[in-house]
Amino acid sequence: MNLNIELASRTNNMGENIIREILKVVSRPGMISLAGGIPSPESFPIELFENLQKSVISKYKSEAFQYGPTEGFLPLREELVSILANEGIEATAKQIMITSGSQGTLDAIGKILINKGDIIAVESPTYLGALSAFNPYEPAYIGIKSDEEGLIPKDLDKVLSENSVKFIYLIPTFQNPTGKTLSKSRREEIAKIIIKHNALLIEDNPYSSLRYKGENIKPIASLCPENSVYISTLSKIFAPGLRIGYYVAPEKIRYWLTLAKQGIDLHTSSYNQALAAEYISGGYLQAQIEKNVELYKPKQIAMLNALQAYMPKGFTWSKPDGGMFIWVEGPKNYNMKELNILAMEQGVAFVPGEVFFSQKDEGKNTLRLNFTMASPEVIDLAIKKLGELFDK
Amino acid sequence: MNLNIELASRTNNMGENIIREILKVVSRPGMISLAGGIPSPESFPIELFENLQKSVISKYKSEAFQYGPTEGFLPLREELVSILANEGIEATAKQIMITSGSQGTLDAIGKILINKGDIIAVESPTYLGALSAFNPYEPAYIGIKSDEEGLIPKDLDKVLSENSVKFIYLIPTFQNPTGKTLSKSRREEIAKIIIKHNALLIEDNPYSSLRYKGENIKPIASLCPENSVYISTLSKIFAPGLRIGYYVAPEKIRYWLTLAKQGIDLHTSSYNQALAAEYISGGYLQAQIEKNVELYKPKQIAMLNALQAYMPKGFTWSKPDGGMFIWVEGPKNYNMKELNILAMEQGVAFVPGEVFFSQKDEGKNTLRLNFTMASPEVIDLAIKKLGELFDK
Repeated sequence: MNLNIELASRTNNMGENIIREILKVVSRPGMISLAGGIPSPESFPIELFENLQKSVISKYKSEAFQYGPTEGFLPLREELVSILANEGIEATAKQIMITSGSQGTLDAIGKILINKGDIIAVESPTYLGALSAFNPYEPAYIGIKSDEEGLIPKDLDKVLSENSVKFIYLIPTFQNPTGKTLSKSRREEIAKIIIKHNALLIEDNPYSSLRYKGENIKPIASLCPENSVYISTLSKIFAPGLRIGYYVAPEKIRYWLTLAKQGIDLHTSSYNQALAAEYISGGYLQAQIEKNVELYKPKQIAMLNALQAYMPKGFTWSKPDGGMFIWVEGPKNYNMKELNILAMEQGVAFVPGEVFFSQKDEGKNTLRLNFTMASPEVIDLAIKKLGELFDK
Repeated sequence: MNLNIELASRTNNMGENIIREILKVVSRPGMISLAGGIPSPESFPIELFENLQKSVISKYKSEAFQYGPTEGFLPLREELVSILANEGIEATAKQIMITSGSQGTLDAIGKILINKGDIIAVESPTYLGALSAFNPYEPAYIGIKSDEEGLIPKDLDKVLSENSVKFIYLIPTFQNPTGKTLSKSRREEIAKIIIKHNALLIEDNPYSSLRYKGENIKPIASLCPENSVYISTLSKIFAPGLRIGYYVAPEKIRYWLTLAKQGIDLHTSSYNQALAAEYISGGYLQAQIEKNVELYKPKQIAMLNALQAYMPKGFTWSKPDGGMFIWVEGPKNYNMKELNILAMEQGVAFVPGEVFFSQKDEGKNTLRLNFTMASPEVIDLAIKKLGELFDK
């Protein structure tokens, strides 16, 4: 007999994550992937793990293997105080909460906040994983307009004036997928607008330590902390496979996020949190940020140079100061989803930009390129191939 | 200005987990805890981690630190094939899915299946963590009647005949909180009833390897695999702090659970999955099961003997063949929530049984005792104190 189970209505909102589908194809030998958004395996501090593991066991013993508090492992939260202060966020250890990657925060936020039909304001385009986290809770999205400098504050003000918005989700620094960074003056304007409307900002900041030029700019959350959930992660520097994210939020939201997390996964891996605590206290995070910047900067330069050399007329692209991505826009009549299939046949994969839009039929002429995985030489070759393909 | 955010309606269903509140009190020095449901720290194979870590790095290198597939780390899934076969479940590696503890499966099941008001049939009492996972999706519960042998099949048949039940959630072996195990003949009856109604069973089996006497009984899921999601975990043997659970489910449910997990946490820690794969392939799991049985069996005997020696007239308790818990029922007029407060003042903590009931005002005269944490001598002392308290 065939089980005939009726799914929850929210389940209709769970789409295949197209990036993960592309990544399956990309793992084939010989394929050059500009599709992922993942750190280079060269960047992982594998050589440290023997000592980290010894140090965890001698310091924390069985505590590293036992059930732990939902809020997170206190020694890690204590280490994150100064990391967050460097990022511009003031918080005590007990105000810093650990989650299973920043995805774990995004899911819990959706869970405690979104009623069916609630409006969420997002950058357009925005991070696909955030949409995957929020979609099952059946929100409606409003895309806020952007220009070459990123989100336009006036349009945010207009959206907040005309709609009852549950929260605003932004990645102000080295945005995924565009790589763009909001200027200091735009951040100040946005913080004022958020305070004026007493709105809630969810600020996602996974990339800010990967800065290749220019000066650090403080998060918007530092300008309106009482209206902000600030989310970051160790995935882009230490190692994504450990699944360690963290956030700082107003007390009431923190309370409910913690209760939600009890039902979601009880707590994040104690052992991995202990490893992360030893990693940070050993001073390795700062050293690795410098190493990763050295590793990625030439790759980004190679990609920007190759785009300049090989892209046909009518193409434009972002010139980010850091992060992992470059955003390319082709002429309006280009369909990058179809072109990606042709590109993959020629051994190069990218992500069609349309998947990053919350509304259908937007961004069909755009694509996201990642430069952290391939070498500068391979990046040059891949962009040359794309240039030839796009020129036909 | 005070942020005045409206929570999602589902958030009203997220209650404080009373056990976690009790555990906070219990961590005070000098307190004897019979409250938790956690493995003894003595049981963790800490001495293995140095070699496991080396083996993971030499075998899997950067893959153990990178983003991984939502479905799970394939070498671990391959190792679990024979573990599951031993538990009575036939599945290929690709049919075995890894989650962040079994809590991760329970949450995802609620997410893909439960519409507001859907009926879930549960044992009464049942596992509090399952209720915490399901509650945010706003189900209604029907408790199925039990006797001294556990769930009564006829009552399940009646419940399924009279109601449209989304799924049945059961812990048939060494149940939490009662410790009871359903007999082979009851399992056969239940499987027939499930097939007759073409119902969906969620079978949670965290404790079955902790058997102190009697013979293994195959899971109900082995008798009706097409109607079952079978869930287990490495938390009760290897180490809960690694957060590794796993499940086997019909293809359609597995597909949607995987999509849901993409939005929840992308995937479970690659590093911990790799450690678990090396742990199982090294033959350590089987060895540790034997060690843990040796560790816990005398503790359970001490508790059963102490209950016999010290409990006043009118008290009865379960005599489980394994697991971590004994369930005690006092006379109807006893209020164990109030008595637990008095007990904690005297340095002994347990969990009032009422928290394990899906309906209010049930089980006020019941309590759950855990015997895995304290030594046999301390257990004797604690039960003596409880006996004196209950005798007043």
